[in-house]
Amino acid sequence: MKGFFKVQTPAQLYQKLNCFKLLSTEEVPLEESLHRVLAEDVTSPVNLPEFPRSTVDGFALKAKDTYGASEKNPALLQIIGEIPMGKVSEITLKDGEAIKIATGGMVPKGADAVEMVEYTEWVDVQTIHAFKTLSPLENVIQMGEDIKTGEVVIRKGRIIRPQEIGLLAGIGRTTIRVFLRPKVGIISSGDEIVPVDKTPTSGEVRDINRYTIVSMVKEAGGIPFFLGIAKDQFNDLKEKIEAGLSQADMVVITGGSSVGTLDLVGEVLQSFPETEILGHGLSIKPGKPTLLAEVQGKPFLGLPGHPVSAMVIFHLFGKTILNILSGLSNEMKPQLCRKARAGRNIPSVAGREDYARVKLEEKDGTLWAYPIFGKSGAIAHLAHADGLLKIDINDEGLEEGEEAEVIFI
Amino acid sequence: MKGFFKVQTPAQLYQKLNCFKLLSTEEVPLEESLHRVLAEDVTSPVNLPEFPRSTVDGFALKAKDTYGASEKNPALLQIIGEIPMGKVSEITLKDGEAIKIATGGMVPKGADAVEMVEYTEWVDVQTIHAFKTLSPLENVIQMGEDIKTGEVVIRKGRIIRPQEIGLLAGIGRTTIRVFLRPKVGIISSGDEIVPVDKTPTSGEVRDINRYTIVSMVKEAGGIPFFLGIAKDQFNDLKEKIEAGLSQADMVVITGGSSVGTLDLVGEVLQSFPETEILGHGLSIKPGKPTLLAEVQGKPFLGLPGHPVSAMVIFHLFGKTILNILSGLSNEMKPQLCRKARAGRNIPSVAGREDYARVKLEEKDGTLWAYPIFGKSGAIAHLAHADGLLKIDINDEGLEEGEEAEVIFI
Repeated sequence: MKGFFKVQTPAQLYQKLNCFKLLSTEEVPLEESLHRVLAEDVTSPVNLPEFPRSTVDGFALKAKDTYGASEKNPALLQIIGEIPMGKVSEITLKDGEAIKIATGGMVPKGADAVEMVEYTEWVDVQTIHAFKTLSPLENVIQMGEDIKTGEVVIRKGRIIRPQEIGLLAGIGRTTIRVFLRPKVGIISSGDEIVPVDKTPTSGEVRDINRYTIVSMVKEAGGIPFFLGIAKDQFNDLKEKIEAGLSQADMVVITGGSSVGTLDLVGEVLQSFPETEILGHGLSIKPGKPTLLAEVQGKPFLGLPGHPVSAMVIFHLFGKTILNILSGLSNEMKPQLCRKARAGRNIPSVAGREDYARVKLEEKDGTLWAYPIFGKSGAIAHLAHADGLLKIDINDEGLEEGEEAEVIFI
Repeated sequence: MKGFFKVQTPAQLYQKLNCFKLLSTEEVPLEESLHRVLAEDVTSPVNLPEFPRSTVDGFALKAKDTYGASEKNPALLQIIGEIPMGKVSEITLKDGEAIKIATGGMVPKGADAVEMVEYTEWVDVQTIHAFKTLSPLENVIQMGEDIKTGEVVIRKGRIIRPQEIGLLAGIGRTTIRVFLRPKVGIISSGDEIVPVDKTPTSGEVRDINRYTIVSMVKEAGGIPFFLGIAKDQFNDLKEKIEAGLSQADMVVITGGSSVGTLDLVGEVLQSFPETEILGHGLSIKPGKPTLLAEVQGKPFLGLPGHPVSAMVIFHLFGKTILNILSGLSNEMKPQLCRKARAGRNIPSVAGREDYARVKLEEKDGTLWAYPIFGKSGAIAHLAHADGLLKIDINDEGLEEGEEAEVIFI
């Protein structure tokens, strides 16, 4: 198995991701539900509004009392008081009467419209002129017009954003059922990898992948924990992978720089019962050595050791797997991808998907992607990239101005 | 002052935001720096790589020993061993010699290029054929080629993303100086507003704004805390605003539904020493009653009580103020805005900026924005919106297919 493996296309590997199962759910307080994935279809226990409300500041009245009213021929109305905010109004309006009301105030019985204050004028302390003819229900939102009791207001699988939290508060939900956040165990590997606080001797390099993968797991809503740096040895790898599988919902390992590391990881995985290697080797650049397996029912992702490659593959596959585990519905995903135009010619080779690291700039509403070149060992260019521009598997590159999918990173 | 105020354009108000001052800074561990704003120009204390590294798996050798090599006429090289990963290689290569090396391995003295394993073939256990002519430095990244000692690698004011964390780890930074996260005190107000866990009687409504504003502050990197629901009374408002100013870097209040609440808030602010009202009334829809002040050197934002209006204004002004306080550089901001095409005609009125709530859909690389209509008292449509589509102050609406700026929410 060493050195060579059967290369698949990224599309082929994507199709295998649906074998991974949803995590279970938990109930959290509303104020802790931001960015969690909703695990229930939320139905409203109430009508909203719960009473007829004015949508403007003005005077509640009977629409028919304004029929024919105009600048030149105002309607005359008697003011019988003011609607207090937050109180039930016991008043029933009679013909020819009006009552002062603020936006959001409860429209009293007998009234069916609200004349905006801008179209009125005080005649004396108890009388106004109204200059605009109203239709019934004008400037009034009726009980249940916004949301009806029993209506599904948000569906399972959506990410809870501030606007969803607002809606949930509006219908009186104090706790919400959400999917668990996936726990992700992260292992770095490679004999040359040293912790970031150690000064590397010649031949050694600092562990970058630990920090980039932990950060990307956080961004994807997961709970990352680091299991240490494994040597390129069967036993050390096995021990750390075992620790990961016992505690986490998903395990991610970054290989050493050597192409052989992920082969060794593959051998370690085979030593566990219930292992299925879903892919080892992808027609993609960067990230060819990628390894994906299902081990004891859990996703195991082996990433190339090079930091840029590891980030690209985690964006493409790691985040997708976390979305599957955490119940995110498909309709939420396309927003991650947009199109950008190549800022210059970008060469590629047909037969593999290519993800160029790009700096994005918006000019007159068009998003331009400028490739950032760096030797494959380099990391400085990483921090200048805002996106990954996809060059399709059948394309031999992009011409300047050509449009392609871009993933924001 | 009640009822009327001098309306400004949003652009006029934006220009006044620069009076707010940057917060101070703190040192945080690398692993806690995600999404914080960098408060130093980071220079590298090391060369990267710290030694010449191979960028491929193959054989390190002298390029000149491959001159003229081809498929038909391979160069013959003697293999003298293997470069161990993570170790200093003491070997000095002689003419005609090659040494096995993995990606990332240290290129030994005497070698100046690496032949990829794909272009080699074993002749016997100590000899290979190399089929490709190499130039000096081919497949080698030299010491300092990526990053040089003393080079500025990331500038102050940038948000720290996973890729920046990776770069910082690569140069051995274990702690990072970042700007403090702004603490934001949030007050709801209005006699009709009740806590979400209370069943409202007729005339009362649940406090939605508390939850939407808290969530948006979190998304903007701030630390929100809630100060309670104030009645529409001078003393209650004053007490809660005082508590906010003493603990927070910024105070946000959402008015009751009544247009008068923010007038009363303005009066309360005037009772503090060192208050400057920067704006009260904006030519914008929704959000006309918006109040912005500098009180005791701190930003104070008064938002309309209607949840949709409050969210729109917080997106436009609240987040911008938080960006200023937390030191985010200008170059990071334009990414928040993109363009989308109106999915149908959207009417507006010249003389005010209009922000239509829209659902975004991508079709063949074009982003379409479909307006979601809802009466101004309604909140259900809020949760269906993905964006705010800007209709310029001089435009009388957008025609179907017309392009405009969109803010993702």
